[in-house]
Amino acid sequence: MATTTVCVPNEAARDGIPPVPEAVRIIMWDGFGDPPAGVADTEFLLGAYMGKPMPVESLAMMPRLRVIQLLSAGIDLWRPVLPEGVLLCNGRGVHGGSTAELAVTGILMLLRHMPHFVSAQQGHAWSPETGESLDGKGLLVLGSGDIGNRVAAALEVFGAVTTRVARTARAGVHGIDELPELLPGADIVLVSVPLTHQTRGLLDARALAALPDGAIVANIARGPIVDTEALADETEAGRLRAFLDVTAPEPLPPEHRLWSAPNVIITPHVGGGTQGWSRRGFQLARDQIARYVAGEMLHNVVSDDY
Amino acid sequence: MATTTVCVPNEAARDGIPPVPEAVRIIMWDGFGDPPAGVADTEFLLGAYMGKPMPVESLAMMPRLRVIQLLSAGIDLWRPVLPEGVLLCNGRGVHGGSTAELAVTGILMLLRHMPHFVSAQQGHAWSPETGESLDGKGLLVLGSGDIGNRVAAALEVFGAVTTRVARTARAGVHGIDELPELLPGADIVLVSVPLTHQTRGLLDARALAALPDGAIVANIARGPIVDTEALADETEAGRLRAFLDVTAPEPLPPEHRLWSAPNVIITPHVGGGTQGWSRRGFQLARDQIARYVAGEMLHNVVSDDY
Repeated sequence: MATTTVCVPNEAARDGIPPVPEAVRIIMWDGFGDPPAGVADTEFLLGAYMGKPMPVESLAMMPRLRVIQLLSAGIDLWRPVLPEGVLLCNGRGVHGGSTAELAVTGILMLLRHMPHFVSAQQGHAWSPETGESLDGKGLLVLGSGDIGNRVAAALEVFGAVTTRVARTARAGVHGIDELPELLPGADIVLVSVPLTHQTRGLLDARALAALPDGAIVANIARGPIVDTEALADETEAGRLRAFLDVTAPEPLPPEHRLWSAPNVIITPHVGGGTQGWSRRGFQLARDQIARYVAGEMLHNVVSDDY
Repeated sequence: MATTTVCVPNEAARDGIPPVPEAVRIIMWDGFGDPPAGVADTEFLLGAYMGKPMPVESLAMMPRLRVIQLLSAGIDLWRPVLPEGVLLCNGRGVHGGSTAELAVTGILMLLRHMPHFVSAQQGHAWSPETGESLDGKGLLVLGSGDIGNRVAAALEVFGAVTTRVARTARAGVHGIDELPELLPGADIVLVSVPLTHQTRGLLDARALAALPDGAIVANIARGPIVDTEALADETEAGRLRAFLDVTAPEPLPPEHRLWSAPNVIITPHVGGGTQGWSRRGFQLARDQIARYVAGEMLHNVVSDDY
């Protein structure tokens, strides 16, 4: 039985992924520094979570590479370096729950005026203020994946009314071409689409201007899907509100005006990666390696037109 | 047809409740200051939301009083002044959604380390920190009402596992006597019981000590159900975390140590009363007045042993 070489990026993965089938050899490299012995035999490569993609010249040292498995939902950083003929698989399901949770947190914080109450608490002030509830609010979910579905399920418990938009229209889902007509009815817009050439700048100045006064933009996907400067203009003017776990640029530099725009809550790309994520991530990697060795279909394959 | 006199506490209620049946006369008084003409004919009294209960001597001016309708879920402030033979009805359903929403907000803020991120944002610092997700967390809901059910439904979307406790055990609900055995397995305790002589001090020093390290106490019901000083001790020690929309005393005085205890988030009793609550509240009052005039059974009657 031939040995299959699997390359993992760090000790955590090397220690966390086993048990793997007997015929699997695990080597460790993130593509930086000296390559380990056997790197040229690599068939299955695990990308580092939240790390840099492997440099093209390192990937070129793996002529037998067949699969790149990521532990993130997003694949935008790796697509530019993907060698021809190599299958790319993402980490769908690993972070979906915790990312959706964070989106719900941020949306509720804005509706319930939590920035005001947090400030009041810092000043030891009991300072009631009338917030809003989700009851009857229009939630526009951009993207048809697990994250959007979970956010919708949680917010619908409190009476939010969901409208879904995805690349392709189908039953219960509007096509992305209908976005201009849908934005004026959205009290909350959840950005949960992958970053592609189609979604870059999807929420530009014009789209943001179409939102009603006081609308909330929640971006837990990728920064460049929203026009940062246009959003800063709208929030500084007090017209829109935003919850951003991702920004463009990222990290957001200290001098950026978004940090102190009113009704903007920023978290530093922590949607995924909560405690326990690595257990789920390594389980996925273990299962995918076993499928690869057994010649079975891999899961989470990201098609070219993703 | 005899005229029925309904006494409402303020202009908002006087203007918001109609249309009422033709035979209803609405007068306005909150029990303070000079009584209006016709006060002695009052049969149906609407209490002010978040206001003081009517003084006993004012209620004594209403010998024909049959019903006191409140717009809050809690009745603890009015019970001491309730004249014998008068039916007390609460505002169940008016604020449940928004109160549950606020509980979810506070719980998620603590799990996702939002106090850290809010501070980081104030310093314009991109400062990632690993939070927790709800996946697999034990949620202990004290109380069997609408609020607890909604919080459970929302948190279960993200994998929380709910255990319910109410005064009386029944299918799927543990009795309050089982609380000591249930506390050690609770990562999150939601306090959503009414304040009664049975629930005052329910979460005392001993009960809090039985919670596991890092557990979250979320109180959106009434302050005196939790022992404030014991909770301050546990949170100052860094052992427990808390989200409190209600406190004892209330308002919490500026010098109180709870304001600055780590991992304590305090909001000033704003669970209900979000925008739109009065529409739901006045609808309830309108419906109840119509039922009373028609001789039908009233809804939301709070039994003596509530």
